[in-house]
Amino acid sequence: MNKLYVVGIGPGSFEDMTIRALNVLNGCDVIIGYTVYVELVRKYFKDAEFLSTPMRKEKERCIMALEQAAKGRRTAVICSGDAGVYGMAGLVLELGKGYPNVEIEVVSGITAALSGGALLGAPLTHDFAVISLSDLLTSWETIENRLKAAAEGDFAVCIYNPSSKKREGYLKKACDIMLKYKDGSTVCAAVRNIGREGVEKHILTLNELREYKADMFTTVFIGSSETKEINGFVVTPRGYSL
Amino acid sequence: MNKLYVVGIGPGSFEDMTIRALNVLNGCDVIIGYTVYVELVRKYFKDAEFLSTPMRKEKERCIMALEQAAKGRRTAVICSGDAGVYGMAGLVLELGKGYPNVEIEVVSGITAALSGGALLGAPLTHDFAVISLSDLLTSWETIENRLKAAAEGDFAVCIYNPSSKKREGYLKKACDIMLKYKDGSTVCAAVRNIGREGVEKHILTLNELREYKADMFTTVFIGSSETKEINGFVVTPRGYSL
Repeated sequence: MNKLYVVGIGPGSFEDMTIRALNVLNGCDVIIGYTVYVELVRKYFKDAEFLSTPMRKEKERCIMALEQAAKGRRTAVICSGDAGVYGMAGLVLELGKGYPNVEIEVVSGITAALSGGALLGAPLTHDFAVISLSDLLTSWETIENRLKAAAEGDFAVCIYNPSSKKREGYLKKACDIMLKYKDGSTVCAAVRNIGREGVEKHILTLNELREYKADMFTTVFIGSSETKEINGFVVTPRGYSL
Repeated sequence: MNKLYVVGIGPGSFEDMTIRALNVLNGCDVIIGYTVYVELVRKYFKDAEFLSTPMRKEKERCIMALEQAAKGRRTAVICSGDAGVYGMAGLVLELGKGYPNVEIEVVSGITAALSGGALLGAPLTHDFAVISLSDLLTSWETIENRLKAAAEGDFAVCIYNPSSKKREGYLKKACDIMLKYKDGSTVCAAVRNIGREGVEKHILTLNELREYKADMFTTVFIGSSETKEINGFVVTPRGYSL
């Protein structure tokens, strides 16, 4: 059977890949991804051919991978973070219906909620929600409804894609929704360039987060009512009596 | 500075550890964990001393680790899955206030939402919530409120600790809450023994999940209104037009 792997490579550093991802990619003839991620990992897999498509060409990328695999080449599509969480696994599986001789296997990776969480300490140690603010594929109404629900449920929230050049002001709008339900002093954080050069972490109140200038390399955390700062770490306690 | 690492080892298989976790644990003098996880990894780290405490002795485990690190021994606390998500990172950081000469570093790992998600395909490719049904440390009222909020927000939901001997019937109660908001035909799944021998996956409707006998090795997924089954995989599409 022809194999196509969808592989989460984690935040970008070699060390944050799983051993399974490393082994799978070492065995591949061709590795396909978004241009930026291909450049991140190219040096570790010198025997593979690399193909890439730019951002917004996700469908073309997945079809390219399915075509390569259908020819009998051992192929991987790489995603930053996890293969599933806002990754390519869903689209590959949807398009894979047209390629019955290609067997698809998903290899998970460390998504930004986890790698950013580790940098911050333990912001997601209790129940949490993950929400993307990108309205390229989702209506803003749906996003707003999810922000509201996450606030009402008092989840710790991890926000992906908080901002981009075309979506300036989205994080502020998200904070305004949260502020209807949550205290302005709620412990929040922003992490930038996780697993790459120039990593930054900022612990902020929800009021301060509203004014924070996030970019597309930022992951944002909004605490639950229990979240607190301890010695420069962000911790959402599970509830053990100390 | 004395170092204490809190390390997520992933679902239990060697391959699903990150290279960072492997390197950190290889450099440790002492590795501390819940008895079952210690037995899973002992064979990979032959140079380390292993210490363990049973379930419900989490506080004792963290203090043991802080004490070891404070003596100058390079120490790791291991957690299944991620170090943060329902892991020990929060408790170690809280208790760490009493050990100013111990520097704590959190190393993330593949949590069951991701490893189970990969087995199933792509159930969490869009916004999702993670909820534990364990009421050992959380009131059932809070859990119920979060289930309700996750349903109202139409999140895909990953449920940890769906059941145990003492908490029989909790998954059924959770499904009953979901059924107030979601269709009985909603695509759901249960995954058992992820990353271990005897791995199982079951794709079910929400009505069927209500009758499913989960145990403490099961992770449950409840789809959003968009989640569908494709060739034996569970996919929550991100919304690309095909």
